[in-house]
Amino acid sequence: MGLNRIFQILVPKDKKFIPLFVQGAENVLDASKLLKEAFTETDIDKRNEKVRRIKDLEHKGDEITHNIFNELNRNFITPFDREDIQSLTSSLDDVLDLIDGAARRIVLYKLNSYEKEFVSFADLIIQCAEQIKIAIIELDNLKHPENIKKACILINSYENDADDLYHQSISGLFDTETDPILLIKKRDIFNVLENATDKAEDVSDVLKSIIVKVG
Amino acid sequence: MGLNRIFQILVPKDKKFIPLFVQGAENVLDASKLLKEAFTETDIDKRNEKVRRIKDLEHKGDEITHNIFNELNRNFITPFDREDIQSLTSSLDDVLDLIDGAARRIVLYKLNSYEKEFVSFADLIIQCAEQIKIAIIELDNLKHPENIKKACILINSYENDADDLYHQSISGLFDTETDPILLIKKRDIFNVLENATDKAEDVSDVLKSIIVKVG
Amino acid sequence: MGLNRIFQILVPKDKKFIPLFVQGAENVLDASKLLKEAFTETDIDKRNEKVRRIKDLEHKGDEITHNIFNELNRNFITPFDREDIQSLTSSLDDVLDLIDGAARRIVLYKLNSYEKEFVSFADLIIQCAEQIKIAIIELDNLKHPENIKKACILINSYENDADDLYHQSISGLFDTETDPILLIKKRDIFNVLENATDKAEDVSDVLKSIIVKVG
Repeated sequence: MGLNRIFQILVPKDKKFIPLFVQGAENVLDASKLLKEAFTETDIDKRNEKVRRIKDLEHKGDEITHNIFNELNRNFITPFDREDIQSLTSSLDDVLDLIDGAARRIVLYKLNSYEKEFVSFADLIIQCAEQIKIAIIELDNLKHPENIKKACILINSYENDADDLYHQSISGLFDTETDPILLIKKRDIFNVLENATDKAEDVSDVLKSIIVKVG
Repeated sequence: MGLNRIFQILVPKDKKFIPLFVQGAENVLDASKLLKEAFTETDIDKRNEKVRRIKDLEHKGDEITHNIFNELNRNFITPFDREDIQSLTSSLDDVLDLIDGAARRIVLYKLNSYEKEFVSFADLIIQCAEQIKIAIIELDNLKHPENIKKACILINSYENDADDLYHQSISGLFDTETDPILLIKKRDIFNVLENATDKAEDVSDVLKSIIVKVG
Repeated sequence: MGLNRIFQILVPKDKKFIPLFVQGAENVLDASKLLKEAFTETDIDKRNEKVRRIKDLEHKGDEITHNIFNELNRNFITPFDREDIQSLTSSLDDVLDLIDGAARRIVLYKLNSYEKEFVSFADLIIQCAEQIKIAIIELDNLKHPENIKKACILINSYENDADDLYHQSISGLFDTETDPILLIKKRDIFNVLENATDKAEDVSDVLKSIIVKVG
């Protein structure tokens, strides 16, 4: 047992971080749902409105991050290592940034049609975001660390699915898309989407490393 | 307050790291200025000479990194956490590598004309490098941590500007560039430039996390 | 000397991690050798079989990672910082993932011919993997930390070679490849290969930071 850990046991735990992380996780979940809607919306104005709302959530995420760092500033004692709080904050922020990045590219690339796999990716990101939320709520009391573990296992399996989906999508794209510029655009969106699920796995890695220490 | 922190208060602080970090920050600043010059130089020989000088600065950066690690080796007590010194070193190194990467691509891709946004990106990187230098000098005595905070806020705002510039540049590129191979080359340079400002934000994140601990 | 370090000296070291890391390093080495074979195999069925075996090694790597985390869970006292064990695990895993990524793209992109530089990259990755294995075996008793340093210096020099090879390959590709879609495919494989050597350097950085602390 490290000295930090002994020290943590001796001091009362300040739990102000968890509600902020829950807010962050809900924000990511909302953004992932809007991303799916944007990929399925056929009316361009309504679609652009959804992309704009994702950007708003991205700004809201920055505010939540800011509040977490302020809290870290005010509190000498935190329930978890400072490094873990920072990693969790920044990996959550990365997922949100990539959801926003995918959404912005919808507008940026002026695509007339979407690949159906874009929607499947959005679904996988939503599923990851749901498990992230479940795991972070569980951090609050840590009475059932096995629930965090279960959520992490699910996130990893979604990331594996995303990996397969990515290869299948790219393979299909190179087989069917003959316009190199359209190919570049669509491949870029697939890269961003796959990256978002990778970052969700990073969140799960931080959560796993937290329960290793406090579990 | 963590035990590490208590321990740090009890021991005299060895400040040999700060001058090395200042050297590193000045090196990044010099490289960013040369990058702008390379993007505006019309004489190919003179331009290649600037690209070569950036590569020299990149090697100088490796030496500075090496010296910081040697110092870390010699000193049991450092003014900051070892992790923070390592993160600061490697994120500074990343900025420099990407400046060098952008410069090398100028030569590599044999472009006849540059996008004016390349210069705007170089300007943003210079501004980031200036604030990084200001913040690192301030680390020396930590009498005014609010100045570090101010520099970090500016770096974040430059990174936001870079994000907008990136989307605007890529959008313009896809609207006007019909040659897919030229599009690939220019888009790659934009990606590297945008990545450089992202890494500058990583430097700012490390600086923020240092002042949270010692502030 | 940090308190963690004092604490480490006072407690018996549990060495169960090293054999797991050696397994991991050997796994990466095997995968890198198969990658070279896949790039030189002309019979498509035999080549696909090698790609499939790399995927098996990738799964084996996941299992090794899983075992390391289980061990971390069971042991309060580890010979190294938890953070270092996590970084070493995840950077080794990254190298393996990228080897697998390069192998999968061979099949995915249905290329009729390979660039000879693919083989040179595979050679550099093999050389990195060999030095990683040497360094990790040396971690076991730490009687000769200078051997770890020597391995890390070699890995860095291979990464520099890979950097030069990358620029030379991309330059050649843009000079000779006129089909933009083929260019996208081959460039992507070069990016993945170069990334693999970058991640090998990350492994070397973690190893260097471990010997700074315990050396």
